[in-house]
Amino acid sequence: MTNPTAAILIIGTEILSGRTADVNVNHIAKELAKTGLNLREVRMVPDVADVLTSTITQLRTQCDWLFTTGGIGPTHDDITTSCVAASLGVPVVRNEAVVQAFHSSPMAARVTPATLRMADFPQGAQLLFNTESIAPGYIAANVVVMAGIPRVMQAMLATALPMLPAGQPTYSQSLDVWLGESQIAEGLTRIADQFPQLEVGSYPFRIEGRVGTTLLAKGTDAAAVTAAYTAICQLAQSLGADTTPRAA
Amino acid sequence: MTNPTAAILIIGTEILSGRTADVNVNHIAKELAKTGLNLREVRMVPDVADVLTSTITQLRTQCDWLFTTGGIGPTHDDITTSCVAASLGVPVVRNEAVVQAFHSSPMAARVTPATLRMADFPQGAQLLFNTESIAPGYIAANVVVMAGIPRVMQAMLATALPMLPAGQPTYSQSLDVWLGESQIAEGLTRIADQFPQLEVGSYPFRIEGRVGTTLLAKGTDAAAVTAAYTAICQLAQSLGADTTPRAA
Repeated sequence: MTNPTAAILIIGTEILSGRTADVNVNHIAKELAKTGLNLREVRMVPDVADVLTSTITQLRTQCDWLFTTGGIGPTHDDITTSCVAASLGVPVVRNEAVVQAFHSSPMAARVTPATLRMADFPQGAQLLFNTESIAPGYIAANVVVMAGIPRVMQAMLATALPMLPAGQPTYSQSLDVWLGESQIAEGLTRIADQFPQLEVGSYPFRIEGRVGTTLLAKGTDAAAVTAAYTAICQLAQSLGADTTPRAA
Repeated sequence: MTNPTAAILIIGTEILSGRTADVNVNHIAKELAKTGLNLREVRMVPDVADVLTSTITQLRTQCDWLFTTGGIGPTHDDITTSCVAASLGVPVVRNEAVVQAFHSSPMAARVTPATLRMADFPQGAQLLFNTESIAPGYIAANVVVMAGIPRVMQAMLATALPMLPAGQPTYSQSLDVWLGESQIAEGLTRIADQFPQLEVGSYPFRIEGRVGTTLLAKGTDAAAVTAAYTAICQLAQSLGADTTPRAA
């Protein structure tokens, strides 16, 4: 079985201008890995309608699931919902239950026509109610639409993931060696070739001037991960590497 | 004059698996904004040759400049250089000056065949020597290729940017108001419509439970930025908004 694939689309001119640093990609990537969804690609685009609509269409066609963040607030540059609807070829409809939720909330006195834009969804969307915002995220076809504010996005993602079909979990084992990547590269290439179904990676680090590398074997085939990890340990031993774990 | 456009491509399976959180996008985005390059899109893809080559080709065709990070180390999953060369239709050639730099460096005794992969570049590349690594980054046609390690990437970017034609600088002015986005949305839409050449944005924040919004006008037309900022201040006043700046 191959795991379902996923893409992430981070929406917002403020990300591309450097005004805001995205922190959502890493959180979503970790959660998808735990759920057994295979993240294939991330994109970040500005709040420009034609760019956004065509990017949504591309990514939701290429992958089983598309996760978006940003652009679902009340202002003129919040255009994610109209672009998702345009991509899916469905109308945007107002949800009266969400309208009522605003009117009966602590912010009822401050509800404006703009507020109620957050009660508009692509027709047929399943809403992602959550504890962090009155305005819900939603799943429309295979597009999971979430807020940009990390705290709110995380609550919406926690609601969404159990609603999606899970894949197989991923296993990984890693070894730290006090060698540079160059020293280990040739042997590691042989191991990577031997286990084509796994991700075999090396990640350099430097602590107080001393160079080391984390060697990693990862995949859904648990037996192969263990075999590759054993091969990595033998490689380190054959090179006489110091394998004292680095401090956390 | 329209500013030159740019895209960023973050390369590495470890980003998509959630193992590593990218911090390079925000640094590059800020530096490009200062330089007057207009960042249009960011993508993150794994170390998979056909995906990488086709993504490089797409982005370097769509934008004036493509900035990549990652995949230029010594190991089997460092495939950026061969993919850039394939995209450009040029061979990969070994640079003897860089080979000599490795052999005369403090790590000379530990140089392996794998190390010397970092002396390979697409034919015709301009090298980005820097203080943080013996292995240089490079500019090949309109692709600026940099390391994934943030400290090294930043040094390579600092070398590269003065080599590129600069655009017009961007100006911005912003006002904090202690109102939710919904309260300000209608008036802000009018201002955005009045200044189509600018980015007019609103960014909500919450400090100790109190809700506020940063209102921003931004663009290369300094006079228009000032006029839009004035309109924003008048809007805040007409709404009776508290505009005490938030603590930094």
